[in-house]
Order: sequence, then C-alpha cells, then structure tokens
Amino acid sequence: MSVMEKKEVQKIEGGSILSPKGFKAGGIHIGLRYEKKDFGVIYSETPAQSAAVYTKSHFQAAPLKVTQESIAASGLLQAVVVNSAIANACTGEQGLKDAYKTREMIAKRFSLAKEYVAVASTGVIGECLPMEKMEQGCSDIAVHGDYNSAKSFQQAILTTDTVEKASCIEVQIDGMPVTIGGAAKGSGMIHPNMGTMLGFITTDANISSPVLQSALKKAINTSFNQITVDGETSTNDMVIAMANGTAGNRPLNENHPEWEQFQEGLSLLCEDLAKQIARDGEGATKLVEVDVKGANSPGEAKIIAKKIVGSNLVKTAIYGADPNWGRIVGAMGHADVTLRPEMCDIYIGEERVFSNGTPQVFNEQSVSDYMKNEEHVVIQVHLQDGTGEGKAWGCDLTYDYVKINASYRT
Amino acid sequence: MSVMEKKEVQKIEGGSILSPKGFKAGGIHIGLRYEKKDFGVIYSETPAQSAAVYTKSHFQAAPLKVTQESIAASGLLQAVVVNSAIANACTGEQGLKDAYKTREMIAKRFSLAKEYVAVASTGVIGECLPMEKMEQGCSDIAVHGDYNSAKSFQQAILTTDTVEKASCIEVQIDGMPVTIGGAAKGSGMIHPNMGTMLGFITTDANISSPVLQSALKKAINTSFNQITVDGETSTNDMVIAMANGTAGNRPLNENHPEWEQFQEGLSLLCEDLAKQIARDGEGATKLVEVDVKGANSPGEAKIIAKKIVGSNLVKTAIYGADPNWGRIVGAMGHADVTLRPEMCDIYIGEERVFSNGTPQVFNEQSVSDYMKNEEHVVIQVHLQDGTGEGKAWGCDLTYDYVKINASYRT
Repeated sequence: MSVMEKKEVQKIEGGSILSPKGFKAGGIHIGLRYEKKDFGVIYSETPAQSAAVYTKSHFQAAPLKVTQESIAASGLLQAVVVNSAIANACTGEQGLKDAYKTREMIAKRFSLAKEYVAVASTGVIGECLPMEKMEQGCSDIAVHGDYNSAKSFQQAILTTDTVEKASCIEVQIDGMPVTIGGAAKGSGMIHPNMGTMLGFITTDANISSPVLQSALKKAINTSFNQITVDGETSTNDMVIAMANGTAGNRPLNENHPEWEQFQEGLSLLCEDLAKQIARDGEGATKLVEVDVKGANSPGEAKIIAKKIVGSNLVKTAIYGADPNWGRIVGAMGHADVTLRPEMCDIYIGEERVFSNGTPQVFNEQSVSDYMKNEEHVVIQVHLQDGTGEGKAWGCDLTYDYVKINASYRT
Repeated sequence: MSVMEKKEVQKIEGGSILSPKGFKAGGIHIGLRYEKKDFGVIYSETPAQSAAVYTKSHFQAAPLKVTQESIAASGLLQAVVVNSAIANACTGEQGLKDAYKTREMIAKRFSLAKEYVAVASTGVIGECLPMEKMEQGCSDIAVHGDYNSAKSFQQAILTTDTVEKASCIEVQIDGMPVTIGGAAKGSGMIHPNMGTMLGFITTDANISSPVLQSALKKAINTSFNQITVDGETSTNDMVIAMANGTAGNRPLNENHPEWEQFQEGLSLLCEDLAKQIARDGEGATKLVEVDVKGANSPGEAKIIAKKIVGSNLVKTAIYGADPNWGRIVGAMGHADVTLRPEMCDIYIGEERVFSNGTPQVFNEQSVSDYMKNEEHVVIQVHLQDGTGEGKAWGCDLTYDYVKINASYRT
C-alpha cells in the first residue's frame, strides 16, 4: 500500500460508532445481567439509509424478523435498540410480540415512526424477555455523542465477551472525510446458551440503502463470514449499518470515482471487528489467521482458509505450539474445492513446512517458538493453481473452551 | 423386530473377521511402534470378490492408490496388509514406490499375483515407511484361523485407539448361515498426526465384487459416514470388504429373495464398528447418538443428525451434563436443509425439551442425571415434515481431547 493510499483509507485509533457525525448512543443496566450494562441504543439525529445482514439459521430469532420489517418499510432507520443476556430466540409468538413491543417503546421514547427502529438481542436461547424491565429501560435510556456513551453501548451488548470491540475508519470522498464506525460483540458463533455475533456500523457517508446493502454484503463476505470460533451459527447473528449522509459527499455508488475507497474502508472496518471477535473466542489465547493464495477462485480460497482455521486439530496444535502441518493438510483435504496436492505449499509464520506436496526439512523448534510466542499466528497456503486469494480468522482451542462450555450452567 | 427377524440377522458375540469360513489373519510387532503390534495381514484361502470405499480427501495416501489399482484389476483380493504408526501420506513418489513394494513383498510371501493384494496404512502423515522393517515384517508374518490371530490383527491396526474394535453378524441365506466379520480402528477422523479410520470386512457370502461394492457403499452411508469425532477426514480412511463365497449360497444380488437380509447384516456390522469408533473418540467419555425423524428425506435427516452430533457446543454440553437444548437448535439451525422450526420437537433421552418450536417445562435435574449417568446418550429430533429418518454418532468433547491433541508431540 502506498503512502497516498494509506491516507485515503485510514484507521482512526480510539474511534467508535460515535466518530461519524450525527450519531448518539447510550448503554445502561436494566437488570437482565447481574451488574453489567445490558441495554443500549444507537440513535441517528436524522433518518439514516440502512442495511443489514442476518443469520442464515433456520431458527432466526424474533428481533431479526422485526428489524427486517423495519428496514423493508423505507430503508431508513433512526434508532437501534439492543439487549444482552436474553436472545429472545425460539420463543414463539410471545417472543415476536415482545420484540414488536420493544420497537414500539423505543419509537415512542424518541418520537419516531416505529419503522425507524431496529431491534437486536443476544443471550440465552429459549427465554422470554422480562418486559417490565425492558419497559423501564426504554424509558430510562438516554443517548449522547461523547466517547463514554459509545463505551457504554459497547459494554451493554456484551455477553461472555472479555473485551469491548470497536473500530473506526476514515476515507476521503470528494475531498472530504467520511467516517465509518463500528461496535461488535461475540465470542463464540453461538455461546453456551448465549447466542450471537452482533455488529453495528454507523457512517456519515451519503449513500442510499440499497447501495449500502450491497457494500455491506461484500464487506461481510470477507470479514464476519470468514471467522469461526466453533463452527456454529447463532439464531441472532446480525450486522446493521446506518448511513446518515451528514458528511456531505456526493451520493456513493459504483460510478462514484472514489467508490472503491469507501468499499475498502467498510471492508477493513468489518475485518477489524471480525478479528476482534475471533481473538476473543471462548477460551482463546491467540488470533489465528489463514491466508490462502493461488486458488482457483477467491471463493475457493475462502472455503479452504475457513476449513483450516475451523479445524479442531489445527486449533489444538496451535494451542500446543506444535508445528504439525499434517493437520493443516488434513483439514484442507476435505474442503469441497478443486486443488492439486502436488502443487501445494504451506507456511507457518515465515517457515515453509510443506512444498509441492512433499514434507520439508525445517527447524521445528523455531516454528514451535513462533506459535508459542506470537499472539497472532499466521498460516499461509499457496496452491499455485490460479489467482484466487482469501483469508479466514479464528482462535486456538483450549482447556478453557471446554471449561466454559461444559460448566456454563452447572 | 420379531423373533423370526432377529434370527435371520443376528449378532455373534465374540465373533471377528475370522468367523466367516476360509479366512486367516495375523499381527506382529515390526518396530514401527515402541512395543505394540504394528503390522497385520488378512488372508483368504481363495481369491475373494472385493470392494472398497476410500477417503474423499484431496490428499489421498499412497496405499489407497495401490489398493484401488489392485481391486480394479479383477475385483479379487486374497490378502490385505496393514501397518500402523506411519500413514505413508503426503510422501510423494517415494511413498507410492514403498506402497507398491509392500504389495509385491506380500504377494511373494503368499505366492499371489500382486493384484490380489491390498495395502493400508495408518499413523503419522508426512513420514516415509522404514522399508527394511516392512521387508522383515512381510517375511515374518504368519496367518492362522484361530481367535487369537484375529485379536493380533485387531491390535496391529490400532494407533491412539484405547480398545480393539470388532464385530460379527450372521444372516440366513438359502437356508444356510452366511457370516460377516469386521475389524476397525480410528479414534479421531484424523489424529494428532495419526491419521485414519480403517475398516476390514470379511464374509463367506457368495457375492460378486460389483454387487458387494454397491452393498458396501450403502452400508457405509448409514454407518462410517455418519460418525464424527472432530469433523475431520483423514488422508487414509478406507473400508475394504472381501467375500470368498465359501458359505455356498446362491449368488447374492438385488433379485435374491434374501438380499435385504444380507444388506441389513452388512449395514448392522458397519454400524456396530462405526459406533465403537465414535465411543473410542479421543478423550471421549460417552457415545452420543442423534436420531432424526420426520425430515424431508433420509439424506436431510442424516445431515441434521451429523450437524448436531458434530457440534462442539453440543459435545461440551453433554460432557457437562447440561440439558442445553439451545445448542441443539443452534447446530441444526445452520444445516443446509429445509425445515420448519415451528414443527420441531427435541428429546434428550425420554424427556421432551422443545416442542413445536417452543421451550417446554421439563425436569432439568433428571435430564442432567441421564446425561451424566448414561454411557450412551440419545438425542431425538422430530421434524414432522416428512418421513425421512437418519442417525449419526459421535462423542463428548472433553479436556482430554484438548490434552491429547495439544500435547501429542511435545
């Protein structure tokens, strides 16, 4: 990346969902969790062009249905309400009624049309929301534009996450800064009863809902869809993006000369949030990245990368700092793609451990040290079979994963 | 099952690959493992109609290529040679040469055409066979028809397995007993560098190679293909069946009036061996069975069953005796099938925990006790969406799985 490119798409350290102009947020404790914040709102001062991507689970939770309805009405949102602790999933008619009621209460609180409100939940599957607490929350919640309010929101959406997850990117469009901010939660694709990967993206870009939808989908395909902690898909997974146009750029679409910058910025933001989720995977001690190059297509590269990073045996080998490339071969061996084993090279860190389908002599101790000492372990696979590239991210599999998930409720 | 049916397809306790008439076997220590037996042969007194099913891994190991060639030549086998400890996978040209050499040496030892010999290996990926030891083994190996020889073979094929795996079924065909015996190994789909699920089936049935192939494939689809320990497919997975016709029945095929008995017997044998593998999964304390009924098709039922039994979160919940049906919903939620959540019932043991897409009130303690006390935990899913049925088997995910796989080589 040249210096100029770096400036056009730039990460803003310490940025958040409130870095883009015209957004406010808040997070409070309403008693769904014991002590921690559990209820949050993002608010846009003007109706924002919106987009969302939802879980593909057959058991899609009630709030996702309500959010879909809201966005379908006009493509506009002005508030997103989120609760943690209870997912409102697999709760039947009552769950849907409660999600509608929550939407209505927030609409009333901020004097909005109800279709301007999106609803998200994360937490235990199969329990209904205590609606008196939700009602209190909807009336108590206040939103502000300061950094602490962004932090409060970031905290309110967590479940078993150990850290807050936020990111911010600035891109130059029409000679002016356009900011994209994000917050996310998730530490297993689905938790010990605690569901959900959630992402919330704000931007002051001027972009229409359908264009934002397509940019969001593209960004998610190389980020949130390329992480795995335990191979599970939650009932509540959702990423919502809101663009309020406050930056004043000419409308963004594929014909805009700086379209690629915006897409790259959005993709980088999503990638950054996704990696934070993978790094905070249940019991994880490391972020694992798999880079596949030379595949038949980007799609096949992504499939192979995700197979490797999702393999329990690769994950335990990384936990054990064991440069055991046989497991990498094993994992990619059953990926549903075409590949020529005799052309395949594998690197752990900088060390080539397998080349042209044949084992290589390498320094096992130094590779083991790399795996042990780095917090971000990179595996590279070169297939020499095309130009397709793809990445995926995950984490190691540790005793603590088993501990967290075997003893969560007992 | 009526009393009469039970007699027509009957499990023989204590039976083995040597229960069918006309087979011999042996297993010895040739120094690939420290002390344990590591080299075995099954021998048929006459050329046997044969069939095999191989791993779908892109990185198919050398012995599988050689075995495919042998069976392709005439559909006949008279000997199978197996070594453990070294998989001879990802070993390039040298590995293929070594597998051919092994076949040749066993052919010479038993005075057979080389195409009558199949080769199988299991163990570390990426290491070449020490051919002087293999040569010694090929000359030292002796085969006999007694029970201890079957045991020696069963032991010689193990790697990290903690128990031998054998099964035997007798079916009545043309008024006479036809016996099917089997031995297997495997305790992860792919091990800590130790590959492979292997199955060896002998029968004295009179059946041609192509018919046996189709019966074997059908049996495997509801057995070996429906188990998962860690979701991995090895480079060396293979099941070989040999039928020497000694029982004297009229040739078996789909037109034979007792064809279904034979198919059922073969399927039961494979299911029994597959369950033994799942139960002996790395670190496992329990066999987990998932029965899906009422799916759109048997294929979709099998996909759903395997998704559930393969879920890390379901597996850890079972280890923790946590009747956490949200994880079962989560796992089946992302199966690539059609299903109607609102029609779905879930049972853990005898207890219905989820019905028509809605949580049920149930005695958590008694379900937890069932999960804790049973060595064979059964989860049932009723989809009420068709007549498709399917089962899958796996095991719980424990600290020991992580321990075995994180510290295997260090």
